[in-house]
Amino acid sequence: MADTYITMQTQNLIGYQYLPDTGTKFTGFNPATGTDIPGDFYPASLQEVDDAMNLAAKAFTEYRQVYPHKKAVFLRSIADEINALGDELIERTMAETGLAAARLQGERVRTTNQMYMFAALVEEGSWVEAVIDTAIPDRKPLPRVDIRKMMVPLGPAVVFGASNFPFAYSVAGGDTAAALAAGCPVVVKAHAAHPGASAMVAGAVKKAAEKTGMPEGVFSVLYDSGFSVGEVLVKHPKTKIVTFTGSFNGGVALLKMAGERKEPIPVFAEMGSINPVILLPGALKNRPEELAKTYSDSITLGVGQFCTNPGLLLAIRGEGLEQFKNALAAGVSNTASGTMLTPGICANYGRLTKERFANPHVAVLGHSEKADPTKSNQALPAVIEVSAADFLADPKFMEEVFGPFSILVVSEDIGQLEEVIGSLHGQLTTTIMAEKEELAGYKSITDKLATLAGRVILNGPPTGVEVGNAIVHGGPFPATTDARFTSVGTSSIKRFVRPVCWQNWEEELLPDELKIANPRNIWRLFNNEWTR
Amino acid sequence: MADTYITMQTQNLIGYQYLPDTGTKFTGFNPATGTDIPGDFYPASLQEVDDAMNLAAKAFTEYRQVYPHKKAVFLRSIADEINALGDELIERTMAETGLAAARLQGERVRTTNQMYMFAALVEEGSWVEAVIDTAIPDRKPLPRVDIRKMMVPLGPAVVFGASNFPFAYSVAGGDTAAALAAGCPVVVKAHAAHPGASAMVAGAVKKAAEKTGMPEGVFSVLYDSGFSVGEVLVKHPKTKIVTFTGSFNGGVALLKMAGERKEPIPVFAEMGSINPVILLPGALKNRPEELAKTYSDSITLGVGQFCTNPGLLLAIRGEGLEQFKNALAAGVSNTASGTMLTPGICANYGRLTKERFANPHVAVLGHSEKADPTKSNQALPAVIEVSAADFLADPKFMEEVFGPFSILVVSEDIGQLEEVIGSLHGQLTTTIMAEKEELAGYKSITDKLATLAGRVILNGPPTGVEVGNAIVHGGPFPATTDARFTSVGTSSIKRFVRPVCWQNWEEELLPDELKIANPRNIWRLFNNEWTR
Repeated sequence: MADTYITMQTQNLIGYQYLPDTGTKFTGFNPATGTDIPGDFYPASLQEVDDAMNLAAKAFTEYRQVYPHKKAVFLRSIADEINALGDELIERTMAETGLAAARLQGERVRTTNQMYMFAALVEEGSWVEAVIDTAIPDRKPLPRVDIRKMMVPLGPAVVFGASNFPFAYSVAGGDTAAALAAGCPVVVKAHAAHPGASAMVAGAVKKAAEKTGMPEGVFSVLYDSGFSVGEVLVKHPKTKIVTFTGSFNGGVALLKMAGERKEPIPVFAEMGSINPVILLPGALKNRPEELAKTYSDSITLGVGQFCTNPGLLLAIRGEGLEQFKNALAAGVSNTASGTMLTPGICANYGRLTKERFANPHVAVLGHSEKADPTKSNQALPAVIEVSAADFLADPKFMEEVFGPFSILVVSEDIGQLEEVIGSLHGQLTTTIMAEKEELAGYKSITDKLATLAGRVILNGPPTGVEVGNAIVHGGPFPATTDARFTSVGTSSIKRFVRPVCWQNWEEELLPDELKIANPRNIWRLFNNEWTR
Repeated sequence: MADTYITMQTQNLIGYQYLPDTGTKFTGFNPATGTDIPGDFYPASLQEVDDAMNLAAKAFTEYRQVYPHKKAVFLRSIADEINALGDELIERTMAETGLAAARLQGERVRTTNQMYMFAALVEEGSWVEAVIDTAIPDRKPLPRVDIRKMMVPLGPAVVFGASNFPFAYSVAGGDTAAALAAGCPVVVKAHAAHPGASAMVAGAVKKAAEKTGMPEGVFSVLYDSGFSVGEVLVKHPKTKIVTFTGSFNGGVALLKMAGERKEPIPVFAEMGSINPVILLPGALKNRPEELAKTYSDSITLGVGQFCTNPGLLLAIRGEGLEQFKNALAAGVSNTASGTMLTPGICANYGRLTKERFANPHVAVLGHSEKADPTKSNQALPAVIEVSAADFLADPKFMEEVFGPFSILVVSEDIGQLEEVIGSLHGQLTTTIMAEKEELAGYKSITDKLATLAGRVILNGPPTGVEVGNAIVHGGPFPATTDARFTSVGTSSIKRFVRPVCWQNWEEELLPDELKIANPRNIWRLFNNEWTR
């Protein structure tokens, strides 16, 4: 088995150097079989964390000035090298995560597409938000001086790999792609749930950086089976940004660590949410089975291990509700168990669903019994019902149950539904399922949705996130620690930059983006007019 | 005297209601005469703080949806009402701050211009960063769904008035203007150094809000002679943004308070800096007297009470340095004392300059003896010299001395100058004074400047901040707590917003900014092309 992974070097990687192993080894783990996977990993030492951050800071002095087209070549090369890992990467990652081949193949496409997307973005160049106000020497009472501004990179970023996206939100995922595109070196803390996948992708990024002549230290990957490497990374003085996708507790812990720094830095923690879905009466009446199918599919997709999983369905008692409930219950009950990412996640799912089932106010609508006896760490999909009154009385129901689980909350009337909506915390998404004709009658609800979330959806499941220019994957706390930014799509590059202006500066010393002649041919706000 | 201020109501203002006075009264204070000014003020009670924030949150549900043109009318009305306060406002503010009439008249123009600027910005509308990706139903492997995003306001903002800009960074200053333009209600914590000016401007904003039909609670002003009102405001759950301009200790204290909140919120504290100025050898050689004049003027302007005051002059020993020193010393020594804003600021200036003078490594280059015996709270301008080696050895020299004071640091060679520059913390501005021909020879220095500051200046003093589209007033910590935003200029509106996207939404239910027909005629990224 070990021979299969000939392309994988498991050591901590600082710049272009693999480090000697020290400390207590750990291995990958196959959640479906419950067994270890060959390949030994070792936590980075404190000295190695320090070395990685110092090298990243050193690399920044050069990398921040690398010309956009050269950065684009680097990003595309990363995608090419990831593709070159071929089936071996998919196989190793399947073993480590329990995720299916098709899902991982799709996720790899998303991951390489993210690299291509950011390559195109930096090549085109308008993302730097260039603004130019030329001098007006004869302005009264005071002359106007020439000022020109644009975005520049913040500095080294620490990226925490996410357990549930071993490619798209891990070593060379969206955070890494956006940071590198912005001009920020990246130090990845690999997620211990898929160290092998991390090592293989790390090798691909290293190759790409070397081939395209990037400064050493633009990329490093450190491993840890616990939390100390992450803590030292977040507190390191050279760290200028932290990105994280994971649990509420994890995100809040990172925020707290960052709060102990002398210098405050942005911490982008995407902590998931319960993604409420409002089922309006007309839609429930006209197409209860269709809604049920959409949502039993969405709840159980990928064993429910998405941060956009619809954990809360809000309905008003009325026509179609019983049909919806029956069909939803059937859909969920007929879905077989699935392997969860880690024993910890599975144990948590078991504990939380059990707690919910035991609640005297809860009716279990559907609970799959289709366990796969040949596999470990299986989650059985479930959907429960509570009344709006009981939901409002118990804040527990507002907490995310990560996995194929959802709560149907039944209100007696529109007023109670509005009360439920008014009680909700910040979310990544809010969704409304409605007939077009009825929407206008629920303006008080549709207006409220955007105040709760970063993405507002009509007639579709929240699962499935389009990676593009218009997407917002983010939202008010506790969905994230900073609602002002998205962690998906081209705009996610904004997390890694700050503006600088040059006043009365020499034309030839300015970045090309700010030269009057506009050699980069980018869109700019030039004397208050958008031009190119 | 009290009769003069007939337009001033001194009570705490929540929405459209002036509150009964409670607690321990305090008054305005004339720093030049050392005497109290008629007019009694009372700190807001905890209940009143709570009421103000709750009313702001309530107003937000309406104000966030006020149409841009109506917001513009409101902002312009504020400017008009401030102008209508006439000389009375200038006289009261002169008494409270010791600032000269001309300075305050200029600052009032800046303040009303900021309102007009934001009115024009929201009317034009492109600032919302609208992005539209239309559906591609036949895209393979998955269809693309219609997604459209734009910026929306975050919620109620708490604005701390600054002592050194009683108009432009106080009750209706840049922070308030930007927040209101974004769609965020504002609760101002008035600065205790100018309660009368605050009350007069508060009355103007109240009138404007009433006249233009704004929801009550869009604006409130609370007073306090201490810190407890500020603390409760920062920790209040309805507060979604905090802005502050003031001392390092004040900003860090607010950040710490905000860190104790359950929900993290953005805290924009602009804490000033020492604004290093690099004097290159060619410029020193060719025009030492001109440089000295520019900088003695800049150091002493407004009694040095600007966050962009040049507190650090960096030179290499060589031709012209002695002439520069002599002329600088003469310029500073010949500048008469000036009244500082508060006894606390003046005492601090006295203590810190005395500490610097007593340092055995310091040579006092120039120290004005032109004290005005008829006035209290006088600051005497001063400039001192230390060697680069001594500067590098003592971090005290890096700390801001708020007032008409600067340190000339003399390096022995370019290497030592680079070492000094390398030791600097984050700044609002960095400046280089140079002959155009010599600049290319100092690329290692010019490249470094943008990593240290938000604004990089060639051949001009850092004092004087252009309020426009291209300005960046901000910079890496400790200059501010968040280098990603500017607190001056049109872009400062970005501090008060977050993105939201609508997926598969109904055309007629979308904000006008996102309708395909573009009824607002704004610039948008539409299917990856900038169009209007």
